Amino acid sequence: MTRRIGQILLSGGLDSTTLACVAQRECYDLAALSLDYGQRHRQELDAAALVAAHLALDHQVADVRFYGTLASHSALTDADQFDLPENRDTDAMSGDIPITYVPLRNTFFLTLAAAQLESIVLRRIENDGVPPEDITPVLYIAANALDYSGYPDCRPDFYATAAETLRLGSKIGTHYGLPIQIETPLIDKTKADIVRLAAELDAPLHLTWSCYNAGSRPCGTCDSCQLRQKGFAEAGLDDPAL
Amino acid sequence: MTRRIGQILLSGGLDSTTLACVAQRECYDLAALSLDYGQRHRQELDAAALVAAHLALDHQVADVRFYGTLASHSALTDADQFDLPENRDTDAMSGDIPITYVPLRNTFFLTLAAAQLESIVLRRIENDGVPPEDITPVLYIAANALDYSGYPDCRPDFYATAAETLRLGSKIGTHYGLPIQIETPLIDKTKADIVRLAAELDAPLHLTWSCYNAGSRPCGTCDSCQLRQKGFAEAGLDDPAL
Repeated sequence: MTRRIGQILLSGGLDSTTLACVAQRECYDLAALSLDYGQRHRQELDAAALVAAHLALDHQVADVRFYGTLASHSALTDADQFDLPENRDTDAMSGDIPITYVPLRNTFFLTLAAAQLESIVLRRIENDGVPPEDITPVLYIAANALDYSGYPDCRPDFYATAAETLRLGSKIGTHYGLPIQIETPLIDKTKADIVRLAAELDAPLHLTWSCYNAGSRPCGTCDSCQLRQKGFAEAGLDDPAL
Repeated sequence: MTRRIGQILLSGGLDSTTLACVAQRECYDLAALSLDYGQRHRQELDAAALVAAHLALDHQVADVRFYGTLASHSALTDADQFDLPENRDTDAMSGDIPITYVPLRNTFFLTLAAAQLESIVLRRIENDGVPPEDITPVLYIAANALDYSGYPDCRPDFYATAAETLRLGSKIGTHYGLPIQIETPLIDKTKADIVRLAAELDAPLHLTWSCYNAGSRPCGTCDSCQLRQKGFAEAGLDDPAL
């Protein structure tokens, strides 16, 4: 029986908070990473910290604002140039790639999380003397292809190939035979499924922030708010964050 | 005839400086990116700036020190825990993965450079109206498998898979049909080959820094110095940086 050493990308939204509860049940150790990339909805970072504290997760917020500067062609990182889409029908969101796409964001995020996870696993093996065969490194990402298939980096084939890149580019993958497993258990779920799962797991949804806008309350009109509202409505539950 | 829009990871060492001269001849536009990840040999960042100025390249140094903190299990990022190998025979370097391996460094670096390149290309297409079919996005990386095959993220199969990950995870790859080409023209060259190529191209090797140690002059004993010395010796040339 190997020990799962887990890492989760925690945005502070509905999906990653629910996934954190799933991962916490599956892992021996779980570390959470949030990324400050200059996103306009910085409230999600505060939400992530509250969620991590609630779940007693080891949590870091990494300052990757330079990434937002380099990958600036997006409505999430350049508020001067781009307006957020408003009041779009959720069915319309699954077609084209929206202007909220941030260049290679998930690739960048998962690489960074994987680098931290590899470092943790190398320390266990090389400093603490844990046998590699006792370890299973797992990276949890709350990607969701169903509601928002417009984003290329939320699709299953992307994650399969990314896992192979991480295996080939890492010491734990090539030398210790411990490829990082990328787990995306929410990828085929609807938002309503996720809301129901969160309720089952008693996930602290009252602490989460999904809105793409800054503000003291969710705007209710951006794509992310629209999807969240639809999810709660279809699940027949009230949103505890409102 | 499409225009190559290029991006190069410029460390300030021998290999990437030589490659910058190759890339500059091949590209319509070329941007250079250097990364401050808390490496002990910070002189390479100054060297990169001097090389970029000499070649009149658009150049940025991104502050990714948090990455060095997350991926800290390495002699390049944790001088307190690890000593650098000294006076190793260069043949011995091509076997095991050395302690100078930084977790997923090249994966992280190329993802970041690719994100910037994608942002540049999206601006050309979506803001400037350049037809996608007129653009070829190319990422140049001075990976070298021959002298230092110990690093997993310097091998050709890694770059082939990474290119597919970048294609699947990006808007330019999936929507515009413009996969980023990863070019590693030095990957099969010896250090002597690279020194000879640098001489042909009049590369500013006098400005470069290869040593893994901090200091006012190269230490001469670390793996990187040993390889560089061997390269110049085999090419029958003097190192202009000494």
